[in-house]
Amino acid sequence: MMTPPSVFIIFTLHMKLTLIGAGKLGKQLYYEFVKHPSIELIEWIDRSSNSKQTAEGIKITKSLDSLQKAEIYLMAVNDDAIPSVSSQLPSNEFVIHTSGGTPMTAISQKRKGVFYPIQSFSSNRTIDFSQITFGLESTTENDFKILQKLAQSLYAKTIQLNSLQRQGLHLAAVLVNNFTNHLFSHAAKVCEQNELSFDILQPLIQETVDRLNLISPDEAQTGPAIRRDQKTITEHLRIIEDPELKKLYQLLTKSIQNYHGS
Amino acid sequence: MMTPPSVFIIFTLHMKLTLIGAGKLGKQLYYEFVKHPSIELIEWIDRSSNSKQTAEGIKITKSLDSLQKAEIYLMAVNDDAIPSVSSQLPSNEFVIHTSGGTPMTAISQKRKGVFYPIQSFSSNRTIDFSQITFGLESTTENDFKILQKLAQSLYAKTIQLNSLQRQGLHLAAVLVNNFTNHLFSHAAKVCEQNELSFDILQPLIQETVDRLNLISPDEAQTGPAIRRDQKTITEHLRIIEDPELKKLYQLLTKSIQNYHGS
Repeated sequence: MMTPPSVFIIFTLHMKLTLIGAGKLGKQLYYEFVKHPSIELIEWIDRSSNSKQTAEGIKITKSLDSLQKAEIYLMAVNDDAIPSVSSQLPSNEFVIHTSGGTPMTAISQKRKGVFYPIQSFSSNRTIDFSQITFGLESTTENDFKILQKLAQSLYAKTIQLNSLQRQGLHLAAVLVNNFTNHLFSHAAKVCEQNELSFDILQPLIQETVDRLNLISPDEAQTGPAIRRDQKTITEHLRIIEDPELKKLYQLLTKSIQNYHGS
Repeated sequence: MMTPPSVFIIFTLHMKLTLIGAGKLGKQLYYEFVKHPSIELIEWIDRSSNSKQTAEGIKITKSLDSLQKAEIYLMAVNDDAIPSVSSQLPSNEFVIHTSGGTPMTAISQKRKGVFYPIQSFSSNRTIDFSQITFGLESTTENDFKILQKLAQSLYAKTIQLNSLQRQGLHLAAVLVNNFTNHLFSHAAKVCEQNELSFDILQPLIQETVDRLNLISPDEAQTGPAIRRDQKTITEHLRIIEDPELKKLYQLLTKSIQNYHGS
């Protein structure tokens, strides 16, 4: 008796996608989507563009009125614009947003989802999407699989987050990214006032981050505040010229001391 | 006529060094000093040790009374202890401290200097000294050369800093290391409250640091504060449970807005 030959058929299904928005995130998503053969970008809604087509041959649309059919309508728009943009999109399609702080329910379609990149996007900085984790949320298991497939197409990792968890993570992201960066701004200014390059602090900044791989931030806390080294604290407050920085220094010092036992 | 053969004599001069202090920095300096053949560690003053000798065969001394002669007496002691420890050291020798916030004049010897590592030292974390920049200060050019030679022995970089510059840099280090780490503590707590691993934020934290290689922190500022996204700010303040974090969030948001134009 003969064994029939095994036949493997690999279906490489394209994901037909419409991208809405051309801000910092929209632009990076655009360049990412056109890179991956498994994603078929149908059109890109960019209100500010006067071209009809991108350099990569993708159709540019200014209006939301007569969109082509797609599997996913991805909104990379301001949080505030999510409800109104969603209401202008086809009502029976799968519509998703990318916001950390906006509940999924801001989308009016029955088939809704969230595709939140846990990363900060600046102009002139290309993000490696394979290093990103996307926080996913949807109402059905099937739509969740579509979101997972989209992330996999970008070689990105995923985590399931409900709207409350996503909001908490977004708050944490503000602390470690936006607020930390603001402290870097003040540090750079202090360096400048002392005719020093901010680059000197780079290894210290890297160490601040690297040691989190081994110890928790609570264990990693050092410095005059936790040591209750009042002499150094007083000296620092004396040399700070900027009243804003003085207030930040005082509150952060007090907060470290309260956090680590009174 | 015959050319005389060239004779190269390489003098590998040992630096005879006495290390005072066995705290976080003292311990790491000890393990670093014994690694380098060009440094001859004469004795290590560790008041808390009951041994007479380290595993590496270095003499441990508890008292400062009868120290052997060394080229450098390096104090890795608390800022407050610098004047009293210095006053107990040989008056005609070269005595240096390692403090960011203490003026060189806290040392009573005529030959004084500063060897300030621009880095944060935690327990259980070994620092790669070749990645450190030491801020150096001394009263004579000759002593400055000795400090440079000491740093070079550790393959470390150096920068000349006067006491005011060093104090400014120490303030900036508190901002980028201690205060940033405290924000990480709060972020880790928010993640925990949402049953999420703090590790999810690692790529975002790394990006926050990496982009400083390309753009300034002022240019890198993003987030609800600089966007004046009052809706997100109000939502974040609503979900923050910790009153300390609430105060920090409010002040940092206000500070970002004031810093980046009103």
